[in-house]
Amino acid sequence: MSSQGVQGYEPRTGKAFGDPVPTTSDSGVGEIVGAAARAFPAWSGLASAERGAVLERLADALDAESEVLIATADSETALGVPRLTTELKRTTNQLRLFAGVLAEGSYREATIDSPDPDIIPPRPDLRRILQPLGVVAVFSASNFPFAFSVAGGDTASALAAGCPVVVKAHSAHPQTSRETARVVASVLPEGVFGIVYGTEAGRVLVQHPLVKAVGFTGSTAGGRALFDLAQGRPEPIPFYGELGSVNPVVVLPSAAANRSAELATGFAQSLTMGVGQFCTNPGLLFAPSSIVDALAEAVGGAGGGAMLTERMRDSYQSTVDSLIAHSSVRLVATGSGPEEGWGVAPRLYQVSLEDFVADKEKLTEECFGPAGIVVTYDDPAQLPEVLRGLEGSLTATVHADPDDHALAAAVLDEIRRFAGRLVFNGWPTGVAVSWAMHHGGPWPATTSPLHTSVGATGVRRWLAPVTYQSWPDALLPPELQNANPLNIPRREDGVLVVP
Amino acid sequence: MSSQGVQGYEPRTGKAFGDPVPTTSDSGVGEIVGAAARAFPAWSGLASAERGAVLERLADALDAESEVLIATADSETALGVPRLTTELKRTTNQLRLFAGVLAEGSYREATIDSPDPDIIPPRPDLRRILQPLGVVAVFSASNFPFAFSVAGGDTASALAAGCPVVVKAHSAHPQTSRETARVVASVLPEGVFGIVYGTEAGRVLVQHPLVKAVGFTGSTAGGRALFDLAQGRPEPIPFYGELGSVNPVVVLPSAAANRSAELATGFAQSLTMGVGQFCTNPGLLFAPSSIVDALAEAVGGAGGGAMLTERMRDSYQSTVDSLIAHSSVRLVATGSGPEEGWGVAPRLYQVSLEDFVADKEKLTEECFGPAGIVVTYDDPAQLPEVLRGLEGSLTATVHADPDDHALAAAVLDEIRRFAGRLVFNGWPTGVAVSWAMHHGGPWPATTSPLHTSVGATGVRRWLAPVTYQSWPDALLPPELQNANPLNIPRREDGVLVVP
Repeated sequence: MSSQGVQGYEPRTGKAFGDPVPTTSDSGVGEIVGAAARAFPAWSGLASAERGAVLERLADALDAESEVLIATADSETALGVPRLTTELKRTTNQLRLFAGVLAEGSYREATIDSPDPDIIPPRPDLRRILQPLGVVAVFSASNFPFAFSVAGGDTASALAAGCPVVVKAHSAHPQTSRETARVVASVLPEGVFGIVYGTEAGRVLVQHPLVKAVGFTGSTAGGRALFDLAQGRPEPIPFYGELGSVNPVVVLPSAAANRSAELATGFAQSLTMGVGQFCTNPGLLFAPSSIVDALAEAVGGAGGGAMLTERMRDSYQSTVDSLIAHSSVRLVATGSGPEEGWGVAPRLYQVSLEDFVADKEKLTEECFGPAGIVVTYDDPAQLPEVLRGLEGSLTATVHADPDDHALAAAVLDEIRRFAGRLVFNGWPTGVAVSWAMHHGGPWPATTSPLHTSVGATGVRRWLAPVTYQSWPDALLPPELQNANPLNIPRREDGVLVVP
Repeated sequence: MSSQGVQGYEPRTGKAFGDPVPTTSDSGVGEIVGAAARAFPAWSGLASAERGAVLERLADALDAESEVLIATADSETALGVPRLTTELKRTTNQLRLFAGVLAEGSYREATIDSPDPDIIPPRPDLRRILQPLGVVAVFSASNFPFAFSVAGGDTASALAAGCPVVVKAHSAHPQTSRETARVVASVLPEGVFGIVYGTEAGRVLVQHPLVKAVGFTGSTAGGRALFDLAQGRPEPIPFYGELGSVNPVVVLPSAAANRSAELATGFAQSLTMGVGQFCTNPGLLFAPSSIVDALAEAVGGAGGGAMLTERMRDSYQSTVDSLIAHSSVRLVATGSGPEEGWGVAPRLYQVSLEDFVADKEKLTEECFGPAGIVVTYDDPAQLPEVLRGLEGSLTATVHADPDDHALAAAVLDEIRRFAGRLVFNGWPTGVAVSWAMHHGGPWPATTSPLHTSVGATGVRRWLAPVTYQSWPDALLPPELQNANPLNIPRREDGVLVVP
């Protein structure tokens, strides 16, 4: 970031892209948050279906501008047109999913208890519903310029909840952010959406008294710093950070024996997809040593690419160098990668299970980029105990053939303690946007193990309950009125009632 | 607390009650937490119905020991046998409610999405469920020796979720805590429940790496200190603190004109119930000046009592003194109260709406005890704007007759922004335990506006999602298996399905 603004770059060449986007001053942040707060009553007051219709229009508008958005993002991220085309579609489908969530209506958790004067303590008429928190700050990610960025999952879910959103643009793609923000602002009512640029603007945003919750996707260090700011406020606020993750994969013996070539290809693809810049990148693979050659061949044949920023490239190189220098780690494959710009090549390392256990902390540090470590085991019975000590992760994966199922059950019982999504005979990269998706996990995968940044339930992060006690029907929100005029699912005297 | 242990006292006399209960050493806390962590797999692995049956047995065991529990609590708290009898029944009914929640089964939020290879991004088979976090620390409250204490709502909901619990006993009732803990430990499997004594033990508990979440009920200062410890850990953990609350009540003009005597009696009862030691105590009443005389008469005729601790009595006296010294505040009534022990008398103060607005911060500080301030208004149209600035509260109450309903709607639109429960033509004290209850609210009412410490949804504080991707049916938890063997409500392809 230059002194006069946030400068975008082309990772493929390392050259500046476009003019710097001016950083937002402290007072500028205040004005944008103030406008969002003023827009809150009207935006949250819209009927769910009306808010859903706006999200649909936003999705259509983004799709209509896909050409310029994708071209700009490709210049700034080097992620390539096919991937960015898919990512933008995923982003607009995400907005449409939330429109569906709003239409279905149970996201407000309408709950009605009829009075009972005879129990202890006596129960009056009680009606509970979720309502939006207020202005939400969203810190967008470097590695998903659409899906976890200006109009990404945090923004979509917060808007769906009824919260105005102020995005802090990621410095890796200021032009993409600005172009996307232009489209978003053209569709949403005034004030409901705002965007700020610059690191200091982000800090001011998190501490603004009118900001009531924060969504963040990024590094553990960056997320922790902002989390600490949010929790240290006079009024602490919910901070939903999706941070680092090593995403261990466990290949059990029969699977390794039966499908080594398929596993090697699948692993190399998942490891190097998007130049390894996925939060679900499989950085750690537990496998019998019999498949190391196949893995090495696959990773050695894989191509790298330009990383998103110069700093990430440098960080990748320094991690890679430190692994090479590690006494018990062996480099077993190096793929190809561009020399120019911020290019890197994939790497595969190998370490024995015993040596891994001896230096677990170092060897489970996330390496952002296309580098992985295969941990080779002799005795698969040791796996559950080794896995027990791993820290929080967004995903954990098991490859198992029928003969492995007993061991898979024992492994499953460990990985479900530290990972948010458990993948069977698949690869962790690629996160579907749906009702049952959970994209989260214990620290340091996230700052808030109860919540997800992808999927329908992501909307809950921005909603808080309120209970109405003994109010006249006409003064209640329609969701809680006796006649259920919106015809939504409700819990009535403890029983779920679906119209 | 004496150096050799936690000494209980009789508030009615100020004399020591029983022997000091030894404080728990740092290593003692570690042993208890370690035992809880070891008990976690088996406790969380029980089927919901089995865990529910244990909660029912615990409720029965507490009821069976009611005589000794109530007598001990009455000595240590002076809350009186009738109130404590009700409170214990409420506590055991709470355990039974959670047994019902477990039987119903939707608390696990089983959600199944079938595969769809054609959407972007493609969707594999995804199955989401909530699972318990691990060992939970519970800080019990002074003012509810049963319902928010050793076997209270935090403990009941965490046990229901499948989490072992370690309680930090409140120093105001060590003997009651010990007696209750004895009953709880006699019913629960070994290690599933533990208790520690002493302030330092509490600090060690919050920072123990095996503790995965904290429930707290108490003062804003105490809660904030522990919240900061929990958030400052290397692995921050969810901290659910229920803190201070002023619980404003708004009496609209027609209600005041039509029912001044009833309102005055109701207010005085609610204000002085339990010597005002309720977190939902109505500390602030907005009303026309026409009913001040009736209010003063009611509060003047009300009796106080002994407060729970010497420190609370001193704090009450100092708040009362500072209000008397306040230039724009007028003392309008003083009730009666015992001279001996830690007795206090109720107080009512009056201030004009203009003077209230001029010194809002001071006049909205919670006064723990039977003292209230009536804020008199001339123009009811000013109420919404004055209410807009109030900080988070557990409750807010409106008294309105039919002629007031238009204004009540405008008031409602303000109070729902800062209060967790909105009471109409009632009083905030008395919190029903049910599906639709929300006992929470924005800071400083709680540290976590999304969650409740009372009611069925309190169980969610201790549960986090996990998603199974493409697992064989036999390896899935029964809640997620195709056949739905437990016959629970689930969301299938976006649709709630209730068996």
